[in-house]
Amino acid sequence: MTTLFTEPLKIVNVGLRSFSDSIAAAGGQVLELDWQPPANGQIETGRALARMIVDSRVEEANKFALQTMLAVDPVLKDILPAKELIPELSKRKMLLHAGPPVMWEKMCGPMRGAIVGAVLLERWAATAEEAERLASCGDIEFAPCHHFGAVGPMAGVISPSMPLWVVADANGEGCAYSSLNEGLGKVLRFGAHDSGVLDRLRWMKDVLAPILREVLHTSGSIVLKPLMAQSLHMGDELHNRNSAATSLLFKRLMVDLLKCSHSDAHKVEVANFIALNDHFFLNISMAACKVMLDAAHGIAHCSLVTAMARNGMEFGIRVSGTGSTWFTAPAPTVRGLFFAGFGEQDASPDLGDSAITETAGFGAFSLAAAPAIAQFVGGSAEDAVSTTLRMRRIAFGVNPAFTIPFLAFSGTPFGIDVRRVVDRSIVPIMDTGIAHREAGVGQIGAGLSNAPIECFIAALDELGRKLGNSPPPSGKQS
Amino acid sequence: MTTLFTEPLKIVNVGLRSFSDSIAAAGGQVLELDWQPPANGQIETGRALARMIVDSRVEEANKFALQTMLAVDPVLKDILPAKELIPELSKRKMLLHAGPPVMWEKMCGPMRGAIVGAVLLERWAATAEEAERLASCGDIEFAPCHHFGAVGPMAGVISPSMPLWVVADANGEGCAYSSLNEGLGKVLRFGAHDSGVLDRLRWMKDVLAPILREVLHTSGSIVLKPLMAQSLHMGDELHNRNSAATSLLFKRLMVDLLKCSHSDAHKVEVANFIALNDHFFLNISMAACKVMLDAAHGIAHCSLVTAMARNGMEFGIRVSGTGSTWFTAPAPTVRGLFFAGFGEQDASPDLGDSAITETAGFGAFSLAAAPAIAQFVGGSAEDAVSTTLRMRRIAFGVNPAFTIPFLAFSGTPFGIDVRRVVDRSIVPIMDTGIAHREAGVGQIGAGLSNAPIECFIAALDELGRKLGNSPPPSGKQS
Repeated sequence: MTTLFTEPLKIVNVGLRSFSDSIAAAGGQVLELDWQPPANGQIETGRALARMIVDSRVEEANKFALQTMLAVDPVLKDILPAKELIPELSKRKMLLHAGPPVMWEKMCGPMRGAIVGAVLLERWAATAEEAERLASCGDIEFAPCHHFGAVGPMAGVISPSMPLWVVADANGEGCAYSSLNEGLGKVLRFGAHDSGVLDRLRWMKDVLAPILREVLHTSGSIVLKPLMAQSLHMGDELHNRNSAATSLLFKRLMVDLLKCSHSDAHKVEVANFIALNDHFFLNISMAACKVMLDAAHGIAHCSLVTAMARNGMEFGIRVSGTGSTWFTAPAPTVRGLFFAGFGEQDASPDLGDSAITETAGFGAFSLAAAPAIAQFVGGSAEDAVSTTLRMRRIAFGVNPAFTIPFLAFSGTPFGIDVRRVVDRSIVPIMDTGIAHREAGVGQIGAGLSNAPIECFIAALDELGRKLGNSPPPSGKQS
Repeated sequence: MTTLFTEPLKIVNVGLRSFSDSIAAAGGQVLELDWQPPANGQIETGRALARMIVDSRVEEANKFALQTMLAVDPVLKDILPAKELIPELSKRKMLLHAGPPVMWEKMCGPMRGAIVGAVLLERWAATAEEAERLASCGDIEFAPCHHFGAVGPMAGVISPSMPLWVVADANGEGCAYSSLNEGLGKVLRFGAHDSGVLDRLRWMKDVLAPILREVLHTSGSIVLKPLMAQSLHMGDELHNRNSAATSLLFKRLMVDLLKCSHSDAHKVEVANFIALNDHFFLNISMAACKVMLDAAHGIAHCSLVTAMARNGMEFGIRVSGTGSTWFTAPAPTVRGLFFAGFGEQDASPDLGDSAITETAGFGAFSLAAAPAIAQFVGGSAEDAVSTTLRMRRIAFGVNPAFTIPFLAFSGTPFGIDVRRVVDRSIVPIMDTGIAHREAGVGQIGAGLSNAPIECFIAALDELGRKLGNSPPPSGKQS
């Protein structure tokens, strides 16, 4: 204390930034600490968090969950009509959509447009007006893709006749589905449903899917981890950038495509469709992520996030130890770059199941592997690295199967821990496309969005209640 | 001076490193400057260099050369038999090889092996012994690929019947050729010449080349700059790593391959051959580099390097302003990682025309774009970045058509300036494969090698003589 007033002051400021201004004005040196009170300053949540951090049941459950997810070996196994994979879809008029549950009344423009398109595709209605009436009067049931083991980008609408990728765990029983990527521009997942969109969807069902199915049956299941790992070394982050993965898949499929029994004209169409769509692998990446994460869903006491998804109205997460509950908050807006002629006022709030890639350590979590995307989402290669480093701070571990060259080949951040998110006030970042708020316009930009912290606080509170109610630590999980 | 002995000493040491040891031992702070006398300490060269640095004729010539090279638009145009492209080859028994000129007596193992293979392929001899006798008795003429507008990796042997890629400048008259890549393992370019190697070469001539030729004629010339630029964003440096470029080319070729007139069995063979060879694009990259560099060859007073090549015995360079002269020095050894079971004692000295990629700003010059290769050549991603930054210091400019994401999307270092090499004692680094010293064993590792500075000193001396003899500056080049 004796030296305090005799030496030049060097201050570390924690909290309100305005404190430092007066110190700086008086000539003092001040270092602003990047810190916020844990749990958004909510005392009860903070106490639950403090207990949970030292609770060995949570730590053990998370370790078990991480090992379980790492052990999954996702393989691209098949393509089948949705109604065969998800029998509920054919029992009644049911459509699946992205994100947590949402009613027709609350759906955003692109999702409503995609629903109308799916109704027309299934021939449940003859015109868009009729389809809209049908959707709004309660005759059609809506459910999240996630409730049926599936994922879909943007609107994420899946109808009974659509073909789905089947990604299975070669080391277990797990399995996940996703729709096939339609390409960019006017497509169903952005809410477009004109005849061009429907014709393409019918072609995908009648030509693309049967050919790829035969190819997959000939070549055998495609092991996805090495292909995805190689893509990370080729500048993909497997969410917004899938050029390398698509190219590698294309190379893998073509020889057997040449050999398959279909007509040359159809083979040319299929080759052309995949060659011209750099996002073709996205939906496979999503299903691979889901099959890894689902393996760790429903483990008692586990604080790891097993799904993040947006329906254009709400952002929702599911946590392993809290079962099927969705913890939701209003969907964030995306900060990013807009294509010429569009701006923030045109953007739909964050949309789609594709945040499953971040949940599994890709997308923004692996942005350091994809410096070239920095320009596309509005940032520098340094920003990309710091995003990945920041996401490391909320991950329970790393995935050694997927490495990032520019971070000394360290593994991708893996297993989002709600405890760390709430403790450090660092939310998951997502690296995403921006849809126009109106149906059918399509993608109008790309950027980053922040998951709302409220979901993680609510999940932590719920997990805290479950831990409080559960018997004393046994030291073992299964 | 009054304070010199009263304050703690802070020393900057230039020159002999041993000076700093005693200062450090006495407790002094010493900073070692990474500096060597220019021109390797040779006084006359140093004087010529000093004159040349301020000679506006050189600066103007280099600017003109750089603009000329940047204006080249290399397109993959055709595949034709070497004898049709290079009529000299069919007039007499002539074979082309990598690097500067070399006689049979001085050729390294892999090159001799490749020569024997080429003689057998052309049926100029029936057995390897007979082929060797023919090659050694002077009945076969040898010349560098570079003397006929061509380049070849490793041994780089080109014989009359071999198909060659034709890469043309869409903006000019320029044109360069290269052989087709055979894949890894037992291949002619590493000196192997057993029946498997010869069968593959015959298949390349009879099946691969005609099919690719038809595809190229159908799809039209493939513009290479955007494809190469995209590959740099996907982790290639287009010398030792061509995975992305090969995948993008494959995607580009396949649709027209499906449509072409050949048999399904042959199409499958071709697709399979390219899909399984990640180096398939290397030879195209090399020809694209050559056509860019050749555009600037032979400009009076220009101090930019237009070719670097190795024949396994000598390393040689050509400089724009000194015409057809090769400036040579013994070929360096490669520092790198060896495949299991091999070591330095097994390695051939540096070999091949593939250093044309570094001459044009790829390979080690673009290593910062290819962090994943760092592990392959023995280094970290940081080493990769510092190699590119170092190469920038000897480049006259950058190539804005090819950018490096991790260096803020700056252009690749372009136009090696002999003045800068000699002034800064920084030699070009090459990122290269290591061949076994004996014919036919193949690649045994990969690493980096340093161009010998003697070539650059000799070239600078010669350019100095030409400048001394030439009329006073006119201020214009053409």
